Amino acid sequence: MIHGGAGSFRKFSPEEKNKFLSAIDRILGDGRDCLAGGASAIEAVALCVGALEDDVLFNAGRGSVLNENKQVEMDAAIMNGATLEAGAVAGVQGIKNPVSLALMVSQKSEHVMFVGEGAMRLAERYGVAQMPDEYFLSEALLAQLERAIEAGKMTLDHDGVDQGDDKLGTVGAVAWDCQGDLAAATSTGGMVNKRQGRVGDSPLIGAGCYADNESCGVSTTGYGEDFIRTVLAKTIADFIEMKGLDASTAAQYGIDYLTRKVKGRGGFIMIDRTGACASQFTTPCLLRGWVEKGGQPMSCF
Amino acid sequence: MIHGGAGSFRKFSPEEKNKFLSAIDRILGDGRDCLAGGASAIEAVALCVGALEDDVLFNAGRGSVLNENKQVEMDAAIMNGATLEAGAVAGVQGIKNPVSLALMVSQKSEHVMFVGEGAMRLAERYGVAQMPDEYFLSEALLAQLERAIEAGKMTLDHDGVDQGDDKLGTVGAVAWDCQGDLAAATSTGGMVNKRQGRVGDSPLIGAGCYADNESCGVSTTGYGEDFIRTVLAKTIADFIEMKGLDASTAAQYGIDYLTRKVKGRGGFIMIDRTGACASQFTTPCLLRGWVEKGGQPMSCF
Repeated sequence: MIHGGAGSFRKFSPEEKNKFLSAIDRILGDGRDCLAGGASAIEAVALCVGALEDDVLFNAGRGSVLNENKQVEMDAAIMNGATLEAGAVAGVQGIKNPVSLALMVSQKSEHVMFVGEGAMRLAERYGVAQMPDEYFLSEALLAQLERAIEAGKMTLDHDGVDQGDDKLGTVGAVAWDCQGDLAAATSTGGMVNKRQGRVGDSPLIGAGCYADNESCGVSTTGYGEDFIRTVLAKTIADFIEMKGLDASTAAQYGIDYLTRKVKGRGGFIMIDRTGACASQFTTPCLLRGWVEKGGQPMSCF
Repeated sequence: MIHGGAGSFRKFSPEEKNKFLSAIDRILGDGRDCLAGGASAIEAVALCVGALEDDVLFNAGRGSVLNENKQVEMDAAIMNGATLEAGAVAGVQGIKNPVSLALMVSQKSEHVMFVGEGAMRLAERYGVAQMPDEYFLSEALLAQLERAIEAGKMTLDHDGVDQGDDKLGTVGAVAWDCQGDLAAATSTGGMVNKRQGRVGDSPLIGAGCYADNESCGVSTTGYGEDFIRTVLAKTIADFIEMKGLDASTAAQYGIDYLTRKVKGRGGFIMIDRTGACASQFTTPCLLRGWVEKGGQPMSCF
């Protein structure tokens, strides 16, 4: 299962919508082939999220939106449900694939999470690919930031600027491999015009991403603070492990919890310990695709 | 309930142990008086954690251990169980009380978490007290870092240096007020000789700290990565909310979960929705104190 963010697609033309669905189908196909060839769940989610990061359509990696300082600051997390190894980076700049850096942190460091300069020093140490500013910056992203700054002037009492329909947030993937192992990963460029140093839910294990073979793998997207305050990915895993729910019931319980506790805005994809897929969202749309237990690939908004 | 960290006290003399217990008793008394005077749970935990940060005995605020660059880098989180408002800061320097900054983030910003420079800019904006380097640095802390660096040379293949018995990690508080509202807060200076940018569990909502009036308040301490991978504070809250457990049973389930899933090293304090206190730990000791439902103050290792 992969996703390309939650939000509204009202402003998109049919051609634009097709571009998004085609990208999801292509990357989903690559993930399926990778798993069919015997790859592990953690390899499959790293591959899919890396491909989503490389595509300028999505707000992660190359297509990341700009913060208040006209900089790209990216976050990513990855978790292996077989070992509970997890890695996360926040506020990194110039990294081609933040999910690859998160994977290296999970596999090569004793720690789980690194932020800012310290995370970027690890990228050099681990030989993770870096890219110059031109790779990330585009006229479209600069224009989008200008619009957000203008809107921000209208809502000066607030710390954030609603990113509205402009751009979907966050990408993610969850996989269940032929060993029965689960993995999940999430990556984002954050919010347009975000304050320097703000960390959303994507790099937080339990909020934006969680995987445990005894329950499920989850990747979330939406208004990050709602997912941090409910620790939603872990909550969904706990619904399965503590109440014995299946994927679709746990997904329903999860979205109800998000709504009841904080009126949360966003959604998630998940695969449970039996390989069953599910997703839920409170936003008008959640761009997603899935192949369930070797069946036909599906994608939709 | 308050705690001053999990670990071993083998190296401490009876006089040193008494110093720790006296500090816990004094701060616990201040917290009790504050609640008896009608303060809210969130005010009480901010007061107690602030007092623990001001005491050089504890690894948080003024007594924070040094990172690999001979700097103090502090983390803190706070959560209001009545509203699910949460605030967290990581990697901040020169802030007298990181818990106060976390509280300001929870109350004044739309966001939950800020790291590094961005968090320190908020401290200026919100008028949170700052202190010069001399306030934090001491001969004892520099000597401790030298010992860790030497030990680090012996374990060069590892990213971390075990802080051993030298210093307890992390402080925290949980309170239940006369309105029946819960709150929790956690603060730390992190690990001795830690890598720049490493974030432990303390500032992560759900890992180091969680509070929800419908379940409990929790503050954890120990080897942070174990608590991040199990999202332990939220897991304990879910045991109460999803399985209807009381505090002491949920605490037992929580520590068993930590052990079974990741052989976790550390412990936690908690108060459930009925005001019942509990704590558990896998380390030899957990320095803690509590006043249960207006009863006698207690403290122990």
